[in-house]
Amino acid sequence: MTDREDDDVPLILTWDDASCGLLSEETESVPATNENGSGYDIVNNAVIPTPGPQDHRYHSGTLKQSWEMNYQEAAIYLQEGENNDKFFTHPRNPKALAAYLFAHNHLFYIVELLTGVLLMVLSLCEAPAVPSLRLDVYVHATLELLALVMVAFELCMKLRWLGFRTFIRHKRTMVKTSVLLLQFVEAIVVLVRQTSHLRVTRALRPIFLVDCRYCGAVRRNLRQIFQSLPPFIDILLLLLFFMIIFSILGFCLFSPNTADPYFNTLENSIVSLFVLLTTANFPDVMMPAYSRNRWSCVFFIVYLSIELYFIMNLLLAVVFDTFNGVEKMKFKSLLLHKRSAIDHAFQLLVSRQKPNGVSLKQFDGLMRFYQHRMSARDRFLTFKALNQSGLPMLSRKDFYKFYEVIGLKWKARRSGEHWFDDLPHTTFLIFKGINVLVKSKAFQYAMYAVVALNGVWILVQTYMLNSGFSWSRFVPWSYIVFLTIYGVEMLLKITGLGPLAYFSSGWNLFDFFVTLSAFLGLIALAFDMEPFYFVVVLRPLQLLRLFKIKQRYRNVLDTMFELFPRMASLGLTLIIFYYSFAIVGMEFFAEVVYPNCCNTSTVADSYRQINITVGNRTFLDEGYYYLNNFNNILSSFVTLFELTVVNNWYITMEGVTSQTTHWSRLYFMTFYIVTMVVMTIIVAFILDAFVFRMNYSRKNKEPVGDPEDENGIVFEAEVSRDEALATLELYKQTCPGGSNLNSLQGVLLSMERTGHSTLVYLGRRSRTKSDLSMKMYEEEIQEWYEEYSNESPVESHRHPEAQLNCPALEPAYQDVRQSTQSIN
Amino acid sequence: MTDREDDDVPLILTWDDASCGLLSEETESVPATNENGSGYDIVNNAVIPTPGPQDHRYHSGTLKQSWEMNYQEAAIYLQEGENNDKFFTHPRNPKALAAYLFAHNHLFYIVELLTGVLLMVLSLCEAPAVPSLRLDVYVHATLELLALVMVAFELCMKLRWLGFRTFIRHKRTMVKTSVLLLQFVEAIVVLVRQTSHLRVTRALRPIFLVDCRYCGAVRRNLRQIFQSLPPFIDILLLLLFFMIIFSILGFCLFSPNTADPYFNTLENSIVSLFVLLTTANFPDVMMPAYSRNRWSCVFFIVYLSIELYFIMNLLLAVVFDTFNGVEKMKFKSLLLHKRSAIDHAFQLLVSRQKPNGVSLKQFDGLMRFYQHRMSARDRFLTFKALNQSGLPMLSRKDFYKFYEVIGLKWKARRSGEHWFDDLPHTTFLIFKGINVLVKSKAFQYAMYAVVALNGVWILVQTYMLNSGFSWSRFVPWSYIVFLTIYGVEMLLKITGLGPLAYFSSGWNLFDFFVTLSAFLGLIALAFDMEPFYFVVVLRPLQLLRLFKIKQRYRNVLDTMFELFPRMASLGLTLIIFYYSFAIVGMEFFAEVVYPNCCNTSTVADSYRQINITVGNRTFLDEGYYYLNNFNNILSSFVTLFELTVVNNWYITMEGVTSQTTHWSRLYFMTFYIVTMVVMTIIVAFILDAFVFRMNYSRKNKEPVGDPEDENGIVFEAEVSRDEALATLELYKQTCPGGSNLNSLQGVLLSMERTGHSTLVYLGRRSRTKSDLSMKMYEEEIQEWYEEYSNESPVESHRHPEAQLNCPALEPAYQDVRQSTQSIN
Repeated sequence: MTDREDDDVPLILTWDDASCGLLSEETESVPATNENGSGYDIVNNAVIPTPGPQDHRYHSGTLKQSWEMNYQEAAIYLQEGENNDKFFTHPRNPKALAAYLFAHNHLFYIVELLTGVLLMVLSLCEAPAVPSLRLDVYVHATLELLALVMVAFELCMKLRWLGFRTFIRHKRTMVKTSVLLLQFVEAIVVLVRQTSHLRVTRALRPIFLVDCRYCGAVRRNLRQIFQSLPPFIDILLLLLFFMIIFSILGFCLFSPNTADPYFNTLENSIVSLFVLLTTANFPDVMMPAYSRNRWSCVFFIVYLSIELYFIMNLLLAVVFDTFNGVEKMKFKSLLLHKRSAIDHAFQLLVSRQKPNGVSLKQFDGLMRFYQHRMSARDRFLTFKALNQSGLPMLSRKDFYKFYEVIGLKWKARRSGEHWFDDLPHTTFLIFKGINVLVKSKAFQYAMYAVVALNGVWILVQTYMLNSGFSWSRFVPWSYIVFLTIYGVEMLLKITGLGPLAYFSSGWNLFDFFVTLSAFLGLIALAFDMEPFYFVVVLRPLQLLRLFKIKQRYRNVLDTMFELFPRMASLGLTLIIFYYSFAIVGMEFFAEVVYPNCCNTSTVADSYRQINITVGNRTFLDEGYYYLNNFNNILSSFVTLFELTVVNNWYITMEGVTSQTTHWSRLYFMTFYIVTMVVMTIIVAFILDAFVFRMNYSRKNKEPVGDPEDENGIVFEAEVSRDEALATLELYKQTCPGGSNLNSLQGVLLSMERTGHSTLVYLGRRSRTKSDLSMKMYEEEIQEWYEEYSNESPVESHRHPEAQLNCPALEPAYQDVRQSTQSIN
Repeated sequence: MTDREDDDVPLILTWDDASCGLLSEETESVPATNENGSGYDIVNNAVIPTPGPQDHRYHSGTLKQSWEMNYQEAAIYLQEGENNDKFFTHPRNPKALAAYLFAHNHLFYIVELLTGVLLMVLSLCEAPAVPSLRLDVYVHATLELLALVMVAFELCMKLRWLGFRTFIRHKRTMVKTSVLLLQFVEAIVVLVRQTSHLRVTRALRPIFLVDCRYCGAVRRNLRQIFQSLPPFIDILLLLLFFMIIFSILGFCLFSPNTADPYFNTLENSIVSLFVLLTTANFPDVMMPAYSRNRWSCVFFIVYLSIELYFIMNLLLAVVFDTFNGVEKMKFKSLLLHKRSAIDHAFQLLVSRQKPNGVSLKQFDGLMRFYQHRMSARDRFLTFKALNQSGLPMLSRKDFYKFYEVIGLKWKARRSGEHWFDDLPHTTFLIFKGINVLVKSKAFQYAMYAVVALNGVWILVQTYMLNSGFSWSRFVPWSYIVFLTIYGVEMLLKITGLGPLAYFSSGWNLFDFFVTLSAFLGLIALAFDMEPFYFVVVLRPLQLLRLFKIKQRYRNVLDTMFELFPRMASLGLTLIIFYYSFAIVGMEFFAEVVYPNCCNTSTVADSYRQINITVGNRTFLDEGYYYLNNFNNILSSFVTLFELTVVNNWYITMEGVTSQTTHWSRLYFMTFYIVTMVVMTIIVAFILDAFVFRMNYSRKNKEPVGDPEDENGIVFEAEVSRDEALATLELYKQTCPGGSNLNSLQGVLLSMERTGHSTLVYLGRRSRTKSDLSMKMYEEEIQEWYEEYSNESPVESHRHPEAQLNCPALEPAYQDVRQSTQSIN
């Protein structure tokens, strides 16, 4: 049952604690027999014993156990490489491992995320609550305490896994701990007093969310924002410097004019010019001076030219430049981190007998821990894809491609082209006809024409409607006609191309969902379901298809879709800033503005709500700005969005200021600067992504992500009958009774059915930004690798123990030494 | 008096028309003797006669004349290369040459520019004139006719120089001609009717200005804008498409709300969302819907996120990307054009005897035409700087550096370091002390401290002043103290560093002028000269020196100064757009808005001017927007600037619209889109320039333009006594009695004084963008040159006549052939 292979001894033994029972459940089924002879292998010119019958440490059960542990640690290294976790947080001993495994699975992550979200959502129900969601103090305080206990529990697990010293050194965790303690105290105080006090510290709650595993993208964004800050602040100071100079100047020039409320004191002058920086009070701020002396416009034109058109753009340029550099450095460090992780894992997977390669058995062992849901067939195919050297083992160079093949979806290469190839002849001809029709240029352009016609139709129809017409009560016949055409087109395409090919294109998916939702809307209308009417108004989105005609639009829209995840994470980052500002705003400015407040301020008009009688008509002159308040978290978010858009933001600022103190302006100005940072980062990000794509497609002389093309990473693996049989046999040995062997048997079955002795499998995945970067920086990457291998001696194959200079591995090394000593 | 050199025969004879008297004044002083023997040189395996006594075409007078013509044509080629004039406008015959020379000198250029400016300035005095500048119809129409006649004259010269066929093919000239004819007719009509009619065509006047030689930068900007247009328009369509979709949606959603004036018709809906694109009506546009249903804010947030934060940034990205490419292509074509010009010139300067090199005599001949104000010494030094090969002639490769050395300012390398080295010992020590002091870090930081203190002082002082205080009537003592310190610092620096070193730094110049103007302001105050008080308020600018401390600010400010010329030309381009729009605006909207107009519009408040009585106080509630009008060209410019800044632009639009038709909106929307294009280009330009500089300094691991450093292009030329003597002799022969030989004699004199037998001269010029680009694209430039030399066979030295494939040279070539045939 065991053969020679079974007795390969790991080069390095990890967590070499014989009393560790963690993995015993998995290994107890392996008989602890030991039938083989032993000998000595010469590694590193030192005589290291290979296990013999007299050595109890190396009877094959323990050996299996050791291998299993090595597999697990290698899998953890690879996961750390993928997630960009630093190796100093690597679990060092079986206890830490237990905590690590507990804290690293999706259930734990989800609980972590939910706790974070719960804490943030609580502010909907706390003191200045959304009316319909108001909760009693003891309810929300108890909920908060519960969530905080959850967070504390998570932190304990982390402490157990990291060890106290590493825990103390880990900055983010320490910040989290202190915020947690603070929140605990405050929550208890709230519970005791049964009333909320001024709790500005709630603004720190997003920390718990940001620290979640699933919020890694947000964390990265925040890091990038902080990295871009120093140059940003430099230019900001330049901006503020000019602002101060011009304020003094403006005060000197315009304060003699008593009709000018913008420059009558130095403070007003500074505030006016700060607001002018955002253009929000232009041209009003100029008007009193301009009406007095026409040449005073020169002051404002010069100020805006310098500040708005020059320095503000410089700000963008500086951030863009930094961003560019940071993106590349990030990519580099991620790449080298991954390589280092692969090096660590490789070292754990090779045996003393064959220190230069990883055999299928070891690879399979690794994969069982790394992606335990992967089928046996896919594990085997992944091994084949990696194995480029032709040897029966993976060399280190092969293994470096690990992260490139890990996400592949494997599929047997179809012999035929169409899904209907196997159907009877008549049916085949019909489908073939549809296929040709659907693929023809004429059909496509006819559809474009229909869509364009539809667009014009909608426009004309809407134009002819009376105002006040409610869309939902009347379905024009044209709507039904066009919808039928789209439906027929959709069906033709699905049948002609086959559902799989149809749905693999993003554009087709888009068509499908728009058409489907239009149909749903129609049904909803038929049943008079009012709330569905917004589905009906989605239909102009069909027109978006017209943009498929031109390459540039395809590029732009594809970039748009590609950017979407990153944009979403940036949006989330923005929301986190919003949250903190909303809490502070609510604590200080809740209920301060209301209709007809702020009568003493210059913006009283915007808050006025009076009945005006002109002639014999009476109407309500409504200044709606009292709606932009901080009365609850949702209103605060809308108000903050308005402040982000910047236009007329000073009306809100002045309104609140007139009801509180003039220090309130600090809040609004700070918020403006913070959003300016985030917005500049967003602009820099879009610029960078787009220019990168353009450069990429220029460099590689191919359009990126052309939806008609094969745009993905494809690996090929050819499987012969013998190989499949041998692998099946191997798997039966290593994990007998595993139900996932079916997949491998399936390969053999399909070989028999088709009568081929080999089968070719294709592994596909979509291209990621990292793939593009790999291609863009090809030459530099080689340099980086060389630098890296010069710095860390892990690379050298002949002296695997040299790797152990790497601090993370030292304990493991000591274990190995101890064990070899004990053998001697 | 003549030696062998004199009889070198040009390889190519240009404008070989013996009857050409154009140059006879310059050559008549050369005796037409012919004392030398002749022979045959073998060039191109063909026997070409060198002049002998029997050949009258080649007696040395005619020979000199031929050389002079060659020099002149070579100079013209080099000028064309420098100015990026295409070679198909190269003058072909002596008549064309006369016209060319007439039309290519600074006097002509200035007249051209003045005519263009006059035509534009006329609009100050025409119909809706600035009140104080109003002229009678017959006066300004006569002035206009005069200017147009001038333009016509210029065009005639151009026709004479280009020849009819080239003239017709030259698009810009044809457009100019047709506009000229139109303006002529209109001006005459105005004169006859003695009243101005609707003259929208005045908007075309900037064409005359743009076509000026001195406005080349503006022309380049316009070209760049037009080149960036296609991708811009694509994205703009996407933007407008989403706008239309959302308008339909908004109309459907919000038109049932009668209190919502923004979405009550489809047209209003489109206009509202167009304005929302500029954020100018946010959040007002949202408020009626938001007060009805809080969730309607989602519509606006989604719209702004897509349009403002995504597509608008995409627009910038696309323009930036195109801009980047266009800049590089422009640099490439300019570089190759220059190289081609040098090739042409080289061909004209080599002799039949030595077809591979240009001798000093020929180079000097060229330089007399190319830069006739250059002194003999500098011509010689330039030759030395070019001559890198060590041969007595310039090889083609040497000659390729022509444009790099042509702007050098030559100066003998000083033996000593300081300007006071030659002074007596005591004085020397004093100055040396000052020098050390001034250069010490302590002194610099002390000055920074003083400046910072001054800044705080000004701020505090201004803060303590009462409003309404007039700066000009009272000089605080602190002002005098600080000014004294600055004055002393300035004097110390000038004496310590020497005036030349002091003024060669831009920062010192800045200090000098700020301090000087502060002194002037003080004097002006002492004499109670009111208008000078703005000089006084300049003094906070001293604070700008603080930014010298940090490298990044130095970079930013240097970039700012470096960008200034280009920014100015972009500003001029913007003004040209403004002018055209201002004319159109004046023709249609002059005098349409006034106080209390527009009562029917939604923006009536901004135009209202009524006395309001609140309690017992009566005050004027003034809506100043009637000041933003098109009543004369100056007001129009201010109004257009306000529209450019965008904020509240819809108030002006709606005001004008309510007084005219709703088609007026087209004008404002078009203007918005045009300024958006220009502004995007400006942003892209600043981004590009800044990122380029950053990349450059990163690539070359040196800060660009560090003011303390030697930052310029420096060439060295060593002159020995013998060389100088020989050159002097040569010059005496070629242009006897030339007063500009003094400079060369000066070299000999200073050699005698110092006793050295050689003198080293340094040629310096500041680094231009082109130099930076040369360094940045080093590798690519080599490729371009190779491509170029493969395409055009001019490169090959052995077959100089192969160059004549170049169409521009063909006529000249035919002349040569004819002449050699006539000799045979």
